[in-house]
Amino acid sequence: MDEKQILTPLSKLGEFGLIEHLNEKINIKNSSTIKGIGDDTAVLKHNKNEVVLVTTDMLAENVHFHLSYTPLKHLGYKSVVVNLSDIYAMNGRPEQITVSLAISNRFTVEAIDELYEGICSACDFYNVDLVGGDTTSSQSGLVISITAVGYAKEEDIVFRNTAKANDLIVVTGDLGGAYMGLQLLEREKEIFKAHPDVQPDLSGHDYILRRQLKPEARYDIIEQFKQLGLHPTSMIDISDGLSSETLHLSIKSGLGCRLIENKIPIAEETAEMAKEFNLDPTICALSGGEDYELLFTIRPDDISKVRNHPDFTVIGNMTAEAGKHFLIARDGTEVPLNAQGWNAFLNKK
Amino acid sequence: MDEKQILTPLSKLGEFGLIEHLNEKINIKNSSTIKGIGDDTAVLKHNKNEVVLVTTDMLAENVHFHLSYTPLKHLGYKSVVVNLSDIYAMNGRPEQITVSLAISNRFTVEAIDELYEGICSACDFYNVDLVGGDTTSSQSGLVISITAVGYAKEEDIVFRNTAKANDLIVVTGDLGGAYMGLQLLEREKEIFKAHPDVQPDLSGHDYILRRQLKPEARYDIIEQFKQLGLHPTSMIDISDGLSSETLHLSIKSGLGCRLIENKIPIAEETAEMAKEFNLDPTICALSGGEDYELLFTIRPDDISKVRNHPDFTVIGNMTAEAGKHFLIARDGTEVPLNAQGWNAFLNKK
Repeated sequence: MDEKQILTPLSKLGEFGLIEHLNEKINIKNSSTIKGIGDDTAVLKHNKNEVVLVTTDMLAENVHFHLSYTPLKHLGYKSVVVNLSDIYAMNGRPEQITVSLAISNRFTVEAIDELYEGICSACDFYNVDLVGGDTTSSQSGLVISITAVGYAKEEDIVFRNTAKANDLIVVTGDLGGAYMGLQLLEREKEIFKAHPDVQPDLSGHDYILRRQLKPEARYDIIEQFKQLGLHPTSMIDISDGLSSETLHLSIKSGLGCRLIENKIPIAEETAEMAKEFNLDPTICALSGGEDYELLFTIRPDDISKVRNHPDFTVIGNMTAEAGKHFLIARDGTEVPLNAQGWNAFLNKK
Repeated sequence: MDEKQILTPLSKLGEFGLIEHLNEKINIKNSSTIKGIGDDTAVLKHNKNEVVLVTTDMLAENVHFHLSYTPLKHLGYKSVVVNLSDIYAMNGRPEQITVSLAISNRFTVEAIDELYEGICSACDFYNVDLVGGDTTSSQSGLVISITAVGYAKEEDIVFRNTAKANDLIVVTGDLGGAYMGLQLLEREKEIFKAHPDVQPDLSGHDYILRRQLKPEARYDIIEQFKQLGLHPTSMIDISDGLSSETLHLSIKSGLGCRLIENKIPIAEETAEMAKEFNLDPTICALSGGEDYELLFTIRPDDISKVRNHPDFTVIGNMTAEAGKHFLIARDGTEVPLNAQGWNAFLNKK
């Protein structure tokens, strides 16, 4: 924002005015959206052979994000992405979202416009319609609550609890980057607080910063599954960290699991920053969270479909030993996995 | 709650523990809910001849509710009702909700249990399934964000913008009660603050207190429409006050309207309390809000279906004069309607 710009207090528009102002930015792209914003409810009509997927996430200021280093446009974008990621994790296709905001009076209309710009930009990129929402004042911080609606043929849906013993555990992309981006931002914030004359040094860290501030949901993987004729036996998206998500698949499927430490994909930039912070990169991948990659299992004889594929890494397998969840460390020892990661001292958000 | 009971801090359960604890209370009632809580998304499958309705509302502490006089159980119940009311206002049938909560650390597990008891009680009464949600800590007040999903045959849906000139304006139940209940609660709160030894005097005011604290959504009216073979030409629920909602129907339909003051239904208890506060009962009905009655229009030749019906009152008509929105006062004068009600000094929430 231009610093010389005159900013508009929210009170100038009022609730109805703000809603109208924001709605002007919205365009409808999907034929399943019969009626978007403007009535008591949205009206959605989809392919008769599909079922409806619904998911919701709430992000609270100073819990999930800190405005001191989160651009509002990125925050809006990410708020949408984290919801769409859940639809993709069912092997579904998101088409609508609703957005509710609790906004404190310290925000200006221009600030909310930036947030909305990010929301609409994500809607455009993922071909999703914003069909409803609510706006309220808040006596405190910003709270963003988004609900996403998606569609899938019932037989295509991939649940968390349907893995089988010996299935291979596969992850997309690489892990731990979003967590290291967060560590970097937190460090620079502390330096800035202590020495306000020192400019934050974020150069050369584009990858991990993008992983934290503007993550993407893996819609492309869902398309890959179709092209490869691959139907995962279970799937989840990685919001809380590899350890926690692997446990979800394993426990809900009534199985055990073995993750192979030296198979876990970690980007070079992530590993380097971890070293700079004296952190074990594996711990960052296991417990860091917010990578929004997909974690899934496949039947062992589907391995040819994922082997040598640049987006996929086989990192372990499910076992018939329910309740036995292990990481096989580089030295061959078995370390029990737990929901907080296997290292409880990690300063997890 | 028994004061001697030992209360449990939320930190004792943690986020995963709290979610598990709350999920134990949930039972699924509708065949359209294939999968509720427990995966990345809920999975819903409905009658192929129907479309999907989606609506969302956010309630913030000290904006929409004050915990000093709002029992948490009632708050949970009301949070669900305000969303279901939007589905009924489309002539639809709600079947699922998601519930997201931002909770400050000052709440105990027992307090959240009470809130959830109210939420589940509303789900039971309205035959709705709780299929998803999110829970986060909040650095400040309680924020409740609920999304409701409903269904209707496309041809049964009633929009806001489809009224015609000369259509009759009809309202269900009576108006202004919720607002007078709020005034009473606010007055007793102030008295209690000034004189903590004086007990609040709420006796004999059951009706208006219930209207404020535990409103119901008019599912019964949707059933009546079916039995009467009545298809309203436009409809909205009354959350912001009769004036504001009538203007929505009238403006969106490109029409004018005339409301007849002495036809507006106001309960005796509401009128009496208004007099005690030196308020005009009509203003309370026009601008008070939160009554969650249905406001709709019907073709003039459908009047026989609503005349003498205990739930319906004809209170005016639409006109072809777009932009001319009037209340015909008891003395016959025409008073312009506006969105804040026709009396701006009213201390509106």
